[in-house]
Amino acid sequence: MKFEISHLDKQSKARRGKLTTAHGDIETPIFMPVGTAGSVKGVHQKELIDDIEAQIILGNTYHLYLRPGMEIMKQAGGLHQFINWPNPILTDSGGYQVFSLSANRKLSEKGVMFQSHIDGSRHFFTPENVVDTQRIIGSDIMMALDECTPYPCDYKYAEKSMHLTHQWLKRGIEHFDKTEPHYGFEQNYFPIVQGSVFKDLRMKSAEYIAGFNRAGNAIGGLSVGEPVEMMYEMLEIVNNILPHDKPRYLMGVGTPANILDGIALGVDIFDCVMPTRNGRNGMLFTKKGIINMKNEKWKNDFSPIDPDGTSFVDQYYSKAYLSHLVRAKEILGAQIASIHNLRFYLWLVNEARNKIEEGTFTIWKNQMVKELTNRL
Amino acid sequence: MKFEISHLDKQSKARRGKLTTAHGDIETPIFMPVGTAGSVKGVHQKELIDDIEAQIILGNTYHLYLRPGMEIMKQAGGLHQFINWPNPILTDSGGYQVFSLSANRKLSEKGVMFQSHIDGSRHFFTPENVVDTQRIIGSDIMMALDECTPYPCDYKYAEKSMHLTHQWLKRGIEHFDKTEPHYGFEQNYFPIVQGSVFKDLRMKSAEYIAGFNRAGNAIGGLSVGEPVEMMYEMLEIVNNILPHDKPRYLMGVGTPANILDGIALGVDIFDCVMPTRNGRNGMLFTKKGIINMKNEKWKNDFSPIDPDGTSFVDQYYSKAYLSHLVRAKEILGAQIASIHNLRFYLWLVNEARNKIEEGTFTIWKNQMVKELTNRL
Repeated sequence: MKFEISHLDKQSKARRGKLTTAHGDIETPIFMPVGTAGSVKGVHQKELIDDIEAQIILGNTYHLYLRPGMEIMKQAGGLHQFINWPNPILTDSGGYQVFSLSANRKLSEKGVMFQSHIDGSRHFFTPENVVDTQRIIGSDIMMALDECTPYPCDYKYAEKSMHLTHQWLKRGIEHFDKTEPHYGFEQNYFPIVQGSVFKDLRMKSAEYIAGFNRAGNAIGGLSVGEPVEMMYEMLEIVNNILPHDKPRYLMGVGTPANILDGIALGVDIFDCVMPTRNGRNGMLFTKKGIINMKNEKWKNDFSPIDPDGTSFVDQYYSKAYLSHLVRAKEILGAQIASIHNLRFYLWLVNEARNKIEEGTFTIWKNQMVKELTNRL
Repeated sequence: MKFEISHLDKQSKARRGKLTTAHGDIETPIFMPVGTAGSVKGVHQKELIDDIEAQIILGNTYHLYLRPGMEIMKQAGGLHQFINWPNPILTDSGGYQVFSLSANRKLSEKGVMFQSHIDGSRHFFTPENVVDTQRIIGSDIMMALDECTPYPCDYKYAEKSMHLTHQWLKRGIEHFDKTEPHYGFEQNYFPIVQGSVFKDLRMKSAEYIAGFNRAGNAIGGLSVGEPVEMMYEMLEIVNNILPHDKPRYLMGVGTPANILDGIALGVDIFDCVMPTRNGRNGMLFTKKGIINMKNEKWKNDFSPIDPDGTSFVDQYYSKAYLSHLVRAKEILGAQIASIHNLRFYLWLVNEARNKIEEGTFTIWKNQMVKELTNRL
């Protein structure tokens, strides 16, 4: 995997670059739609490519491991083949969902035991076997197994957890480096910085992670409930330490404003369920602010969903119609909102790239962040 | 509205024709996807046009009347505008859903009182006001208010109910003929034959309906649980009486085999929720038979969904992938199955039209009916 930075913003840490993977190039900064169980909810693969212009999607190892399972995944020839997706895929390690979705989990030095949220069956994830699983999935970028600490989290727990994550990382890297891809194309392994909201832990963790000099690095354990200023403080500290010439991935973040602020702090890659999950609940993100389709005021607003929008749904359907579909819980409402929001996120990072190139990123970003958080 | 029959099958009552409406031509025999509450569930309007090649869709007056309601519908300029659908629309009267979905309904000579299944609010449908409602919706073809008798139904009830339907029809027609379209284009009013499974009642009803000589006629109260042979027997009786030169619409029917047999008995128009509702449950209709995507055997069948299929989903996705999506209750599973099934239904009536034109309909139909009912 190759990462080339083509432009640096002078007023911030923002950078424009290109990440080259076995399944094509990714322009950074980039946002990854979340394809939880092998599908970006409510969106056809060809809509992701043609309408949303997604360059990379994320798959959840926890979900794919439980269903369809690795036997099917292997027979399919990996996730790209299984879902017919030609572009890059990143997978998480599954750790996050083990902590947020499964039942009766038991954490030990060796790994984490848990029960499936689907059928209660018992499973064990280790730093090594999540590499094996992600080898079978065949993601272009796989993630290390980590413990994502909750917020708030006391210092002692955060420190202990960080050390566990570091130990797991070492084992994961060793295992990754001595195993081979199944499908003939290159895979990459990203370590994850933890340390909760404690500066010294974040510094230690970033230094530890930087020491491995992997093709890319991730920042986890943020946007879990802490004030946004704390997240930005941690990002600043961590990005000062993580290698400049390697892509930085901020996991699970966030709102459009978070993404622009994250870019300003030197982040290159983002993912979040917000555009699809909030979309299914009738929340739309636009240039001018946030629209809650359940508000009475949209019921008889027959103007296009988003006159500034760049996806086909924006001009094709009216706010009144979408508002009706959301109220009536029609599948099409979820489809339209998901396409709109995802396209908006992809448009936003595309604009950010252009502004970085033009040298106007910071002014634009400061103006946009104000507008993006309006409630329309 | 103009109806021209271009070809008659020599071995059956099948005919090929063209129905001309204010929103364009409809080639018959035709199947109408059901767009219950202003959306064919899980399908974009442009997919209906480009991929499924739907020529007309059906809207449910009961659903649209309750939500978004007629105030919004009027402001939108009718259903075509509201949902951005340029082609013809047929609406039912709402009667069927009052009997199947609402609570505490009370039938009287004047009309039917019911409580909304959404919020329990009380409403009253009359033969006159469902015309007014369908004027506001602006459907190209509107239906008379009728009582759809259940099966089984005793003779006395069926007879009484038929007389009520006939009285309502007279009032509905009078009201229709003295009111005007709201949006400047022509609307049509179809009466409905009832009479349960009793030959003499069906004959009486067909004669009564034929006497009005409307632009088209419908047959209701079938496919409600009676043996299929009984339905075909009733169809034969009724179609011998309904005007030959007017389109005949068999309401709420049915399986692909029902549709072909209905065409052979002289039916021109069909609608049914099966392709979408059964699709959402993982049932696919194909040329070679029915596929239940929940069967274990499809879990690792990586062949295309339907090698003979004519929609983009058929070649794009595999059976194993769709089977996974259905099991995981992913929205995309419902989307794919709905597009496949609707396209299959539209392909089927298109083939029927071609075979009628070629003079090979009956041989083809008899062969197809056998294959369509296979369980794959």
